[in-house]
Order: sequence, then C-alpha cells, then structure tokens
Amino acid sequence: MKKIKLFKILFLTFLFSYLPKTLAQSLDEKSLTNFKSTADSIVSRSLFDQKGYEWLKELCRIGPRLSGSENSLKAIYWAKEKMESIGLDSVWLQPVMVPKWVRNDIETAIISFSKKYKGRKLTIASYGGSIATPANGITAEVVEVKTFDELKTLGDKVKGKIVFFNRPFDKGLVNTFEAYGKAVDQRTQGAIEAAKYGAVASIVRSITSKDDYVPHTGVMYYNDSIPKIPHAAISVLDAEFLSRAIKEEPTLKITINMNCENYPDVLSYNVIGEIKGSKFSNEVIVLGGHYDSWDKGCGAHDDGAPCIQTMEVLELFKRLNLKPKRTIRCVLFINEENGLRGGIEYGKYADTAKVKHLAAIEADRGAFTPRGFNVTTDSTTISRLKQWLPILNKAHIDWIRPGGSGGDVAQIKNAKALFGFVPDDQRYMDVHHSDNDDFESVHPREMQLGTAALAILTYLLSEEGL
Amino acid sequence: MKKIKLFKILFLTFLFSYLPKTLAQSLDEKSLTNFKSTADSIVSRSLFDQKGYEWLKELCRIGPRLSGSENSLKAIYWAKEKMESIGLDSVWLQPVMVPKWVRNDIETAIISFSKKYKGRKLTIASYGGSIATPANGITAEVVEVKTFDELKTLGDKVKGKIVFFNRPFDKGLVNTFEAYGKAVDQRTQGAIEAAKYGAVASIVRSITSKDDYVPHTGVMYYNDSIPKIPHAAISVLDAEFLSRAIKEEPTLKITINMNCENYPDVLSYNVIGEIKGSKFSNEVIVLGGHYDSWDKGCGAHDDGAPCIQTMEVLELFKRLNLKPKRTIRCVLFINEENGLRGGIEYGKYADTAKVKHLAAIEADRGAFTPRGFNVTTDSTTISRLKQWLPILNKAHIDWIRPGGSGGDVAQIKNAKALFGFVPDDQRYMDVHHSDNDDFESVHPREMQLGTAALAILTYLLSEEGL
Repeated sequence: MKKIKLFKILFLTFLFSYLPKTLAQSLDEKSLTNFKSTADSIVSRSLFDQKGYEWLKELCRIGPRLSGSENSLKAIYWAKEKMESIGLDSVWLQPVMVPKWVRNDIETAIISFSKKYKGRKLTIASYGGSIATPANGITAEVVEVKTFDELKTLGDKVKGKIVFFNRPFDKGLVNTFEAYGKAVDQRTQGAIEAAKYGAVASIVRSITSKDDYVPHTGVMYYNDSIPKIPHAAISVLDAEFLSRAIKEEPTLKITINMNCENYPDVLSYNVIGEIKGSKFSNEVIVLGGHYDSWDKGCGAHDDGAPCIQTMEVLELFKRLNLKPKRTIRCVLFINEENGLRGGIEYGKYADTAKVKHLAAIEADRGAFTPRGFNVTTDSTTISRLKQWLPILNKAHIDWIRPGGSGGDVAQIKNAKALFGFVPDDQRYMDVHHSDNDDFESVHPREMQLGTAALAILTYLLSEEGL
Repeated sequence: MKKIKLFKILFLTFLFSYLPKTLAQSLDEKSLTNFKSTADSIVSRSLFDQKGYEWLKELCRIGPRLSGSENSLKAIYWAKEKMESIGLDSVWLQPVMVPKWVRNDIETAIISFSKKYKGRKLTIASYGGSIATPANGITAEVVEVKTFDELKTLGDKVKGKIVFFNRPFDKGLVNTFEAYGKAVDQRTQGAIEAAKYGAVASIVRSITSKDDYVPHTGVMYYNDSIPKIPHAAISVLDAEFLSRAIKEEPTLKITINMNCENYPDVLSYNVIGEIKGSKFSNEVIVLGGHYDSWDKGCGAHDDGAPCIQTMEVLELFKRLNLKPKRTIRCVLFINEENGLRGGIEYGKYADTAKVKHLAAIEADRGAFTPRGFNVTTDSTTISRLKQWLPILNKAHIDWIRPGGSGGDVAQIKNAKALFGFVPDDQRYMDVHHSDNDDFESVHPREMQLGTAALAILTYLLSEEGL
C-alpha cells in the first residue's frame, strides 16, 4: 500500500505540475495551421504593398502635429478621410480640449561674452511649455551641473545665472528607454529646480543617443509656487563644446532668446474608426498610438508611423477580406506629448461605454523592426498568449512579456489585457523629439513588418477572444 | 501489484519525459549570475566605447576590398597592425591565392536607338567575373524575361540580342535572404543561359529590396563550353523604366560598354589573431567574417563591420581583462565573394592542425541589431546552448535555432558546433553589393550590440566548452 501511494503521489504531483504547460499549448493543430496561413498572408501583403509607408509620406507632407496647432487639425481631418475612404463601419472624432503652446520663430543661443568664443552660436530648442525670454534675451554666466544634488550643493551660487544640466544619456545601457528615463528629469524638472536657487534660465543637454548638432525638445513642467524661467534643450555636440568652453573661461556669458508662448486650451480630437465584429460586436479591441507629435521633424517615428500602422491594420483586414468576430477599433489619441488629454478622454468614455473593452494595444515606440509585445494582464492569460508566438513569429515577434503598454491605452481601466508593441529600440532615441524624426528615418520594411505584427495580434484577439 | 506497476510506470514515464528539459536548464544559479554580470559588462562597454565603430570608420577610409585589389592588401595590413596593437598572443597572415577581376572605369548603358528615349542613360554595374564588351560596346535590341523557362521558350528569338532578366526581388517575403536566393540565379547563371540561345549580352534587374538608381553587383559564372558574354546589373528603377520602354518600342536598342578584366590569380591572405586559452589552449574557438568585399561602397555591412565585430571581441576580452580558458581566434577570411578561397584554405589548415577546433562563429549577415544564432550541431548541444539564452539575451539574442553558419566557417569540418550570427535582415538587401553599403549605413549601437552578442557567446564557449 505504501508503495502504491508513493508512486500515486509522485505521479499525480508530476502530472499536475506538468499539465498547466501542456494545456496552455492546446491551440489545436488545425487552428494553428489556419492562423499561420493567415499570418503569412498578412505579412506578405503588408511588406509587398507598403501602403502604410505611402500613407506616412502623405502625413509627413502635412508637417509636425503639435497639439493645438493648425497642422494637427489638418492631420486629424486627413486621418478621418483616410479611414472613411477604406470603408470602415464607423469613423468619428471625439472632442478633446488640449493645451496650446507655440514655439514661434526665435530660439537662439550665442556666446556673448568671451575672449575666445564670442559670437559662437549654440543650437537650442525651447522645451514645450516654456515661457519666453524677454525680447532682448537673457544674458548670464553658465553653471554646469550633472544632478539636482549638485545643484542643491551650489545653492545660491547659481543665482542670476543660467543652469546648464549636462548629465548625458547613458549610451552603455542596452535599453534606450531606460537611458532616456535616467536623464529626462533634467528636462521635466530642471526649470523648477534651477529656479529654486535663483537661476534666470536653464538649458539641458539633449536626451539622445546621437552625437550631433540637433537639439531634442520635449515636455517640461513648472511649479506655480516657484518662479518660471525659460528652459531649452541644447544639442549634444554644443553641450560638449559649452562644457569645455566654461571650464576654460568660467566668466563666459551666453545670451538666450526665445519667443515661445502658452495659450488657453483649444478644441481638438481623437480620431476613431472601427470594423464591427461579426459575432461579438460588443467586445472591442482597441489599437492605436498618439497622433500629436512635437513640432520638430514630422513626428515620423513618434508617433506618426505607429499611428498609421494601427490604421493600416484595419485596412489590411479589408484588403485581405478578414471579417473579425470582435470589433476592432483604431484610436488615434491626441495630446500624449504634453497632456495625455486624448487618452484620458477616451478612458472616461471607455468606463461608461456599453461595449466591453476586451484588449487594447498601444504602438508608441517607433516603427522599427518588431521584437515583442509587452502585456499587462494576469499570468494565465500570458500563458495563453504565449501559445500564439509561433503565429506572431511570422512577423518576427520573438516574445510576449509582462510589461507596460503605454500612456494612452493604460487609461482604459477595464480591459482584460493591455499590450505595448515593442519594436527594436536602438535607433529610436537618435530621432526622438527632433528634426531627425523625419520621413527618411523610417524604413519601409521595418514599418510594414510592424504593421503585420500588430495585425496578427489583432486578428488572434478578434478570433480567439481572451 | 498491478496498481503499483501502473503508477510506477506512469511516474517513470513522466519523470523521464520531463527530466531532459530540467537537466538542460541546469546551469547553476551562481554561474548564471556570474555570466549575466560579465554579459552586462560586455554590453555596457561595447555600447559605450563604440570602439569597433571607430575602427570601421578607419577601414572604410581605405575603400572597398575586392579580392586581389591593392585596397584589399592595405586593409589586410591595417587589420594585422590593429590586432598587433591590442596585444594578442599571436597574429599572422595565412597566404591564399585569390582570383583577380578588375571593374575598370567603363560601365555604361544608354538607349541608342529609339524614337522616344534615345540618349537616356541606364545605371549598370558589371558583374564580378564578367568579360568586357568590345571597345565600341554592344548595341542590340532587348528581350525581357523573368525566368530561364521563359528564355528557353523564346530560344533562338534572343539570338543577337541582349537578354534582360527582370524577375524582381520578392518584397512580400519576410526573410530577405530567401527573397535574394529566389532571384540570384539570374545573376549567377544568367550569362550562361542567355548565351546558350545566342544572346550577345545580358543584364539583370538588381537583386535588392530598395527601389533606387543604384545597381547591385555580385559574382557570376561562365560555362567553358558556352560562349562568354558580358553580364551586368541594372538598377531597379532603370529596370522598371526599360521594361516599360521596350513594351512601348520593341525595336528600341541599347548600347552597353564595359571594360572590366580578368587576371591570373594573385597572392592574398587570411588575417588571423588569437588569445591563448589559459586552461585549454589546444581547444580553439574561431570567430570571423569575410574580409573581402565587392568594389562598390566600402563593404561596410558586407562584411567589413561584422569582421570588425569579431576583431573587437578579442579586444573586448583585453579591455575587460577576461582571460578565456580556451583559445579564441579571430579569422578574417579573404575571397568569400568570388571564390571562397580563404575559407577553403583555412579549412584545410584546420583539418591538419594539432589544435582542436571546438566551435566556429561566422558573422556575414550585416551589422544590424542582433536577433539570434543559427547553429549546426547535435540536438543535445542545442538544448545545452539554449540554457545560455538568459545570458545572451543581455545583447538582445532572443533565440538559438538549428541553421546554417556561413560559407567560410562551414569549411572547418571537425568543429563540434558551427554558429551563424543572425542580426535583423530587413535593411540588409538595400545596401548589399552596392554603393549603398557605406559607413553611414551602419548604426553604431546596432553594430556594437552585435559585437556584444558575439563576445558573450565566445565567452560562454571559452568558459564552458561544448
């Protein structure tokens, strides 16, 4: 009896420790074959036709799409018309009030007092939300710091001066988003910290992986209880030059001139289009990106191309005559860059909508070659999703991992799974928020393979549910 | 008793079906942690210092490195000096006789008889090994075909004409090497097939994923029993133009002029450098690429940057003070493009060498962002190698799969495992064998992450053996 029990227990222990994995791989052979075949068609058509890439060319011709700008409205109407032209079941604009900040035509910096470098220009870009300088600019000595602690130690010594935050993007980190995250406080909080100690302006070494003369902009914040000072990015190569120059000549002065302006909020829109599900039309799968961009380059990778990838997914369903069982909805969120208003507004709508938001997929990491999907969901669902990898791999998706989706879709609180599309990130920070983010920086095959990856995941979700 | 047996059998069945996987994951926790830590250092230093990328800049300044050319010898001496300068234990040149073909200064095509298009130039590039045209060129009508079958059907109708092979690179295929493979017979065999039916020359639509006016060269063959005719690539956009033009005007003629030449074989070298193993110096791990290139661009991705990645692996060991247990040897093989003589010569040496070639890693798919390693070995070794994925993943290696290594290292017949480094392939065929393959086409982080991937695999092999 003892022996019986021993083996019985051992057997059952093994069985149950083994079963979950076995069951999790239970997508039947026929479905797997069919899905793989559909995935092949999706990949092939996306790569061959390069339709999204052509759309991106059209979008980039409109120019950058900063929230509240005329361009952003043009782009919104362009997307609405494009969605209508592909025969979606519904296309609509969701009104959103957005902040309006305008860069205007002056953003200059020049070495104005120096024995050696007088007249040397420095390439800068006002940060989004910054106030202007007085019309004759701000002229002051420059104090370089790498951290807020260093600034705190200097304290009053920065009074009347321009604080120069020069902590570099750490190129040694493999994850460029991590490197970005470790430097970005200089941009977001720098003006507040510098003003605390009486600085008259602040500049920040551009947060980028590329050494060039192109400044990278982005959002910055003020604190109402602390004086507001002008705040701008300086290109990496000019930051390195300036750092050397002030070591040589600590009394060197620079003059900064910026005429950017903040305005009251204005009306804008999320652009939404959908294909109704043939069987479960009240279950919605959202996919989208943020449609606004910074006002440098044309916001190609951030986030024009990814937006277009999500639009093209719906068009690909039409082109391939795929009729999704569940409703698939493309949402182009406005104002992620400096407010997240579009995401928040859609989130509010989703909370009260009669339809159920099953899943949402965000594309906001550029349109580079696909690598994987982050997903925020329970572990059982993750195991199930991993069954789909042999299908997703057709578009070079090598993994599904627990991880963050993105700022916009994270506002959809009740979705069972929130996905973040993860393309390769090695080139992203070269272009991010700068003039480098132009149409030419997007590679057609990389973009179209991403479209295919998004389409395959969307198709699987629409057919299999969650 | 029966019950005992049943559960015993069930238990043992489960146990043994389960065990291999468990054992295969048995790299102990401490080793795993240590290896991960070393991998982190490798990745970080490689990305931060970008030393290989700087070396590539130096190499590209020398120019392209076609076998037998003066440039190729300059590059060989440059690599030898570089290896010596980093303090390797041995550096030597292995003599190899290589073919010599010279493009020379004339390769033109022009529409010479046409009502509408007379005088329109077409961008062409002689294929490596092609004979020249007569000094006054070859003037003839053009017959377009897509396949050799189509050519066969036309038969004598191509007599006295120029055969124009216009089967496109299939952009719908996700694997660009597969698309290349499906089009390349036009280049390699086209002159033989066209001459069979009396054609006087042949041109081939460039085998590339990019639509531009840049022709892509490559190796071509003759058959001694069939007349030799001049054979050249035409750029994709000119191929499309020409295809339309001859449909409009079938009697249109073009004149091709080429003055390339074949010479007798000349002396060249493989460049070899190594760090002796501290414990098993008679076990060698080879890593390398082919050092020759085509004579367009500077052979940056094909195969300059990958060669430099393998050189930098040894230098990284020095920089990080890693002392490999087994000997690691970088071999820069000459003449892969039009002869494979370097690989064959090294293979002969390896067959008779006193040292044991444990493993060899080839890098010949460009210097794009890393994805995985192909490996040719037994299934037990593959299972074991897969244990290393959490370590290799530090450099974004997501998989190890059975697959081909590369033409050069495949000549090392007795190695236990032959690896092929597989970076992302979406942009490779844009530049391959053309002027597009210049220094600017290589991204520093993508290249350096590849170096790190190669270094981590080399380190694991050197420490753990196979």
